Amino acid sequence: MTTPDPSESRPSSKVPRTERGRRTLRKLLDAAAIEFGERGFHEASITGITRRAGTALGSFYTYFDSKDEIFRALVDDLSGKVREAAKNTLQSDLPALDVEKAALTGFLQFAREHKEIYRIIDECEFVDPDSFRQHYENTAHRIQERLAGGTRKGELREGLGEAHAWAIMGMNVFLGLRYAVWSEDSSVEDIAELASSILREGLAKRPSGQS
Amino acid sequence: MTTPDPSESRPSSKVPRTERGRRTLRKLLDAAAIEFGERGFHEASITGITRRAGTALGSFYTYFDSKDEIFRALVDDLSGKVREAAKNTLQSDLPALDVEKAALTGFLQFAREHKEIYRIIDECEFVDPDSFRQHYENTAHRIQERLAGGTRKGELREGLGEAHAWAIMGMNVFLGLRYAVWSEDSSVEDIAELASSILREGLAKRPSGQS
Repeated sequence: MTTPDPSESRPSSKVPRTERGRRTLRKLLDAAAIEFGERGFHEASITGITRRAGTALGSFYTYFDSKDEIFRALVDDLSGKVREAAKNTLQSDLPALDVEKAALTGFLQFAREHKEIYRIIDECEFVDPDSFRQHYENTAHRIQERLAGGTRKGELREGLGEAHAWAIMGMNVFLGLRYAVWSEDSSVEDIAELASSILREGLAKRPSGQS
Repeated sequence: MTTPDPSESRPSSKVPRTERGRRTLRKLLDAAAIEFGERGFHEASITGITRRAGTALGSFYTYFDSKDEIFRALVDDLSGKVREAAKNTLQSDLPALDVEKAALTGFLQFAREHKEIYRIIDECEFVDPDSFRQHYENTAHRIQERLAGGTRKGELREGLGEAHAWAIMGMNVFLGLRYAVWSEDSSVEDIAELASSILREGLAKRPSGQS
């Protein structure tokens, strides 16, 4: 069998073979982020996307069969960008808690520059529930792996698992909603430091002399 | 001025005056939670709500003008139920961190019994963004007040503010999504204890001998 099973292909199933094709696909996805972010899935249209992208309608159908398909591809694309934004700020030799802080800083910066991401991922819960779930399960899985690394290095306590990762993810998502999307009244660095202090020492008052 | 300002009235502006009226309104809101939770806002219908409630169509219009209006009233109602679910588990003399743990336990129990709440509140971001924002701002505000109480009692550290409240709320919401709505593979008590341990001591490994 040399014919790939379409059901196993990626959301954006037609991969461009030329540099020009890759640029067109990129333009379409960037335009889709604006179109879906501003208008929502139901109001968004394929012609709205191609107009914003400055491409012909035919180019759209070279890569996507429908509005649903580019929406799924966009969620996959944004999910990858979130992963990269968190990763870009990481250096390999950072202590485990600084890794979490750097990842949150990167995410908050990304969310400020791409405020539409919240609306798109959130609407995905209704348009394509499987992709919504996949996005968060993947993100939690990455956090859980980082925590396990911190425990192996002797920096984090034993027994950290999936639920700790979900707790951190929820903290980060809600801090992003409040301090990156709704308002920028605090600096990204202050918010990341505040979240980091929770992971470092919790909220309890420490006996004096104990930092 | 004895005439109330209509802009200050509750979303469900026609308040029932009799016990029977209160029961009908309650039935309509409970039916709306199922209808919107199962079908989503766009697919949900007023006749679907009255059929589930076992009330006449006229009863619906006694209390609500439209599908939008009962949706807003429902979000307000659910927001109040979340508040009550967290509050019911509280005793007035609990230490501050046990208050947070009890509030999360109550919320997780409520979310397991009313899984539709996530879909309804999340869809509210698109149907009625102001109510969506209000729900989370109110919730964060309550958490912030509880934290301030803990600091006053000398149990929590100084300087806890709005962002700490948003961090806790995000943690709770995502733990609820994963462990109350998507799966019940861990007990409510285990998840609440795990979240509590983050607030109590963070994730860092403590020097041995220091609990």
